[in-house]
Amino acid sequence: MHGHPEVAVLRYGHRPGRDDRMTTHVGLTARALGADRVVLPDNATQSAETVRDITGRFGGPFEVGLTDELDATIDRWEGAIVHLTMYGERLQDVEADVRETHAEAPLLVVVGGEKVPGDVYEAADWNLAVTNQPHSEVAGLAVFLDHLFDGAELDQAYEDAEQRVVPQELGKRVEDVDEE
Amino acid sequence: MHGHPEVAVLRYGHRPGRDDRMTTHVGLTARALGADRVVLPDNATQSAETVRDITGRFGGPFEVGLTDELDATIDRWEGAIVHLTMYGERLQDVEADVRETHAEAPLLVVVGGEKVPGDVYEAADWNLAVTNQPHSEVAGLAVFLDHLFDGAELDQAYEDAEQRVVPQELGKRVEDVDEE
Repeated sequence: MHGHPEVAVLRYGHRPGRDDRMTTHVGLTARALGADRVVLPDNATQSAETVRDITGRFGGPFEVGLTDELDATIDRWEGAIVHLTMYGERLQDVEADVRETHAEAPLLVVVGGEKVPGDVYEAADWNLAVTNQPHSEVAGLAVFLDHLFDGAELDQAYEDAEQRVVPQELGKRVEDVDEE
Repeated sequence: MHGHPEVAVLRYGHRPGRDDRMTTHVGLTARALGADRVVLPDNATQSAETVRDITGRFGGPFEVGLTDELDATIDRWEGAIVHLTMYGERLQDVEADVRETHAEAPLLVVVGGEKVPGDVYEAADWNLAVTNQPHSEVAGLAVFLDHLFDGAELDQAYEDAEQRVVPQELGKRVEDVDEE
């Protein structure tokens, strides 16, 4: 997010077909809640296309990358790494440390698919649990980002949008954006 | 959540097959982030079964209901109603009002599927947007509940669990719970 070191979200694992919607939602949630970039496995081409399309219409900056090197993306990362997992330390216990570290350094947020190898747990600076309950990697990512940015991401502006939603008590209002 | 008026989450709409995972994640997110109950459309039997199974293993109290009367569930609700939609008012602008109302009254949180009719917008006390960006109903529900409870749901305890995850810096630790 503007004014912060980079936050990139890495979706670790994707099964085409079965995971398309979840992976798309990981990407869209990353964009809407303040991350700068999502990196998807290279077999998630359909999800990547959807997230790019939304970014084109509703604005950015937000980057969508595909990689066939999930592990190398982690190994080569220059900054701090958070791995979201229900087995990790509690968000409320470590979030202050994560925020302090991210004030100075880029942050990679690893969001697991079905199987995450032990190496990812080892590589992470924090294995972090948004509750130690089974729920949803999309929900976990959303709450994590909202805590990381302390709600400031809710006010972020988007550039180069074709359209924008105007908040309404009732009904739907979408405006075309005329770039001057 | 314990010590608060009831929060029920209503999943409005479900397409069997296509929506199974999203609806399951709505239910699991409701449970993990402090709601007391989820009500699913009666064709979401598989999702209901999964959420009940998780509740049996990881504890409650949490109820899972099925209904063939989505609209009547809204019409008959005795309390306040929030409808989560990207077209609504901004979370940060109305959350204080929602919290204040919920201090005194039960709250129904309506989470849309593909098509939500205008009647739902009319019936809601708040049409509320967790960002006015397209992302994920699961992410929106998670951030909404976390704001509603001001993070207190992260500390909630579960009763009658068979097992529980013990937070770890590294690795996975799941304990059997012996009820005395």
